[in-house]
Amino acid sequence: MKIALLGFGTVGGGVWELLQGNPDWDIAWVLTRRTRPELGSRAVFTMEPILADPEVELVVEVLGGIRPAFDYVAAALQAGKHVVTANKALMAAHYDELTALARQNGVALRCTGAVGGGIPFLTALERVRRLDRVRSVSGIVNGTTNYILDRMTREGSGFDAVLADAQALGYAEADPSADLDGLDVRRKLVLMANVAFGVSLREEEIPMAGIRGVTAEDIAAFRQAGLVCRMLATASREEGGVSAVAEPALVPDSAPEAAVPLNCNRITVTGERLGEQAFFGQGAGRYPTAMNVLQDCMDIASGCRSFYTERALPCPVDNDTLRRPYYVRTGDEKPFAGLIAGRLGPGFVTRPMAVPELHRRIPGCRFTAAVDNAFFAQHFA
Amino acid sequence: MKIALLGFGTVGGGVWELLQGNPDWDIAWVLTRRTRPELGSRAVFTMEPILADPEVELVVEVLGGIRPAFDYVAAALQAGKHVVTANKALMAAHYDELTALARQNGVALRCTGAVGGGIPFLTALERVRRLDRVRSVSGIVNGTTNYILDRMTREGSGFDAVLADAQALGYAEADPSADLDGLDVRRKLVLMANVAFGVSLREEEIPMAGIRGVTAEDIAAFRQAGLVCRMLATASREEGGVSAVAEPALVPDSAPEAAVPLNCNRITVTGERLGEQAFFGQGAGRYPTAMNVLQDCMDIASGCRSFYTERALPCPVDNDTLRRPYYVRTGDEKPFAGLIAGRLGPGFVTRPMAVPELHRRIPGCRFTAAVDNAFFAQHFA
Repeated sequence: MKIALLGFGTVGGGVWELLQGNPDWDIAWVLTRRTRPELGSRAVFTMEPILADPEVELVVEVLGGIRPAFDYVAAALQAGKHVVTANKALMAAHYDELTALARQNGVALRCTGAVGGGIPFLTALERVRRLDRVRSVSGIVNGTTNYILDRMTREGSGFDAVLADAQALGYAEADPSADLDGLDVRRKLVLMANVAFGVSLREEEIPMAGIRGVTAEDIAAFRQAGLVCRMLATASREEGGVSAVAEPALVPDSAPEAAVPLNCNRITVTGERLGEQAFFGQGAGRYPTAMNVLQDCMDIASGCRSFYTERALPCPVDNDTLRRPYYVRTGDEKPFAGLIAGRLGPGFVTRPMAVPELHRRIPGCRFTAAVDNAFFAQHFA
Repeated sequence: MKIALLGFGTVGGGVWELLQGNPDWDIAWVLTRRTRPELGSRAVFTMEPILADPEVELVVEVLGGIRPAFDYVAAALQAGKHVVTANKALMAAHYDELTALARQNGVALRCTGAVGGGIPFLTALERVRRLDRVRSVSGIVNGTTNYILDRMTREGSGFDAVLADAQALGYAEADPSADLDGLDVRRKLVLMANVAFGVSLREEEIPMAGIRGVTAEDIAAFRQAGLVCRMLATASREEGGVSAVAEPALVPDSAPEAAVPLNCNRITVTGERLGEQAFFGQGAGRYPTAMNVLQDCMDIASGCRSFYTERALPCPVDNDTLRRPYYVRTGDEKPFAGLIAGRLGPGFVTRPMAVPELHRRIPGCRFTAAVDNAFFAQHFA
C-alpha cells in the first residue's frame, strides 16, 4: 500500500524505520518541517502533492498538536484517503468532525497509538463491544506521572528531584504541564470513554486534577497506610449519563495499579459479562507507539474501513451520582468544615463526596487524591 | 453464518446464550451427549448430519478432552469447514496434525479461548508477530492454582482448606490433578510458545512441577521475605532453541504477578522492540471463554482463513542454558549437597542451577519453586 507520512519525529522516524525493507508498504511522501536529505525526493513541505497523488491510499499523521494536523487530516479524509493518527490532542478536540468526515467519505480513521502508546487498548475495546456492554474504562494512561509517583513511592524521593530525572531521561518534556496537570490523561480519557460508550464527551467538561502538589510527606503517609498514589483516568456508565474524571487516586498497595512500574501504563475495561480485562505495557516511546500506528495501517490494508464505533452521541459528563472519599492537604481547612472523616499524614480524608463538590474546592488545595472505598470503609467509616 | 456447536456444557451453553437473537449467526446443529429437549431438532449425537450439511461453514468444538474431539475436529477440517475450539488438551496434543489439516484444506483454525479463557492472548500474539520478534512469553494461566496461592498468601490459610473452598466455588474440579500438578499450565504453554516462536514443542518434553506440596509455613516464610508464590508458565528463545517450564515461582511482592487476585490470569509477551506487554482477565468461566470463542468466529466471518502462524517447526525443548535459583523443601537434603546457598523458612535456596538439574531431583522433594534472580542476588549471592 502506498502511504504518506506526516511528521518525522520520534514516532514518525519509528514508523519509517519499521517499514524499511517491507515490500508491502511504500512511503511515497514524507511531510516534514525541515529539510531531510535522507528522504530524497519523498520529502515535501505541504499537503498538495500528497492530496494530488491518487495512488496514496492512506495518510499517517504523527505531527502532534492540533494545527496544522487538523487541516491535514480533514483534507486527507475528504480526499478519500484513510487516516491513521497517534495524536490524542487532535482526536480529543475534534472527535465529532473527524469521525463524521471518515464516515461520510467511507474511509477508515484509526488512532490506537493515541491511548496507551504501544498498548492496543482501542482495538481491544472495539472487539469487546462486538459482544458485550462496557460498564467502565479506567487506568494509568500517562507514563510521566507514573514514573514520578512510582519512584517517589519506592524511594521516598522528592517531587522535584524525580521530575528532573524524568526530564533527563526524556520521560518528561521541558514544559511538563500537559502531563503533570492532567491534560494528557483527560484527552486519552475522552477517546477511551467515547469508544467504550459510543458517545462524544467534551474535554472541557471532564474534571481534572494533577500531581504537581504531591510531596514526599504525602507519599510517606500513604505508604504507611498501605496506599499507593497513581494518576488515573476513570469513566463509567452512570444513571445520568457518563461519569468521567482524571485525577490522582490512592489504591491499596496490593492493587494491580500499584504494581505498575516506572513509565508503564495499565488500562482496564469492565464488561457486563466479560468482567475486568486489563492491558499493560509501554505507554509511549518510538517503537511501541510506531507499532500501534502500523497495526492500524495493517488492519486497514486487511479491509478495515471504519472508526472504532458507529456512533458518537453528544453526552454530558455527569459526575453527580459518583461519591468518593478524598485525601486533601490544604492550608485552609474551612471549606471542608463538616466533611472531614479523619487525619492522614499531613492531610485529612473527607467523607464520600460527589466529585464536583471536591473539584470546586481544588483551587484552594495543595494536593488532592481520591481514596479507595474499601480502605475508607475499613479505617474511617 | 451457519455453524455447528459440538458440546453444550459451561462454555457451549455460554456460546448458545450469547448468540440468541443475533441475526448474523445460525446455530444449525448442536452435538450433545444427552437429550436436550430445548434444542429441538438441532440436537444430534453424531457428526454425520453436520459434515453432510454443506451450508455449515464453521464448527465450534467445546467438548473438551482429546477423544472424540480430535476425530470430530479433523473430520470438520477435512470437510472444508472452519474450526474454533477452546480445547487446550486437544490442541497441545495434536498441534501439528490439526494446523496442517487446516492449511491443507484452506480453512481457519482458531483456539483463542484455550489460553487464558477470556483473555485474547493468542490473537494479541499474532498481531505482535506481524511487526516484532517475540523474545519470551510467560505468566499466570491457571485460575485454580492462583486462587489457592493468592488466598493462602493473603489469609495465611492452609492448602487443603483453600482447595476445598475452590472446589465448592467451582474453581477447582473434583479431581484437581490437571490443575494442581501443572498439566493444564503445560498445555497452555505449548500453545503460547508454539504461536510465539512458530515452532511445535512436544508437551512431554516440558518440565513441570505443581503446587500440591506447598504449606502455610512455606507461604509465611515467603511473605516474610517479601516474596509471593505464583504458578507460572515460561518460554523464551535461548541459544539452543526454545526453553519452556511450567512450575511455581517466587516473585517480589511488588511484581505485577503478585497483584493478580483470586482466579484471574495475567499473561505477558516480550517483543524485541515492543518490550513487555501483558494481558489480565478472567482465565476461565462461561461468558469470558464463550466470548473468546465468538471473537474467533467473528474473525473468521470477517475473512480470517488461517491459524495464528504459518509455521510449526518441530523444536526440542532446551532448558540447559537457563539457570535459576530454587526454593526447595525436602526431607532429604543430600542430593543438594554443595548446591545450597542459604536457608529460607522450612526450606533452603539453591545456587542458580540449570532447570533440568532441579527437575531431576524434584521426585524426592516436598515443594520446589524458582526464585526471583534479583531477590537471590540481594540476599544469597
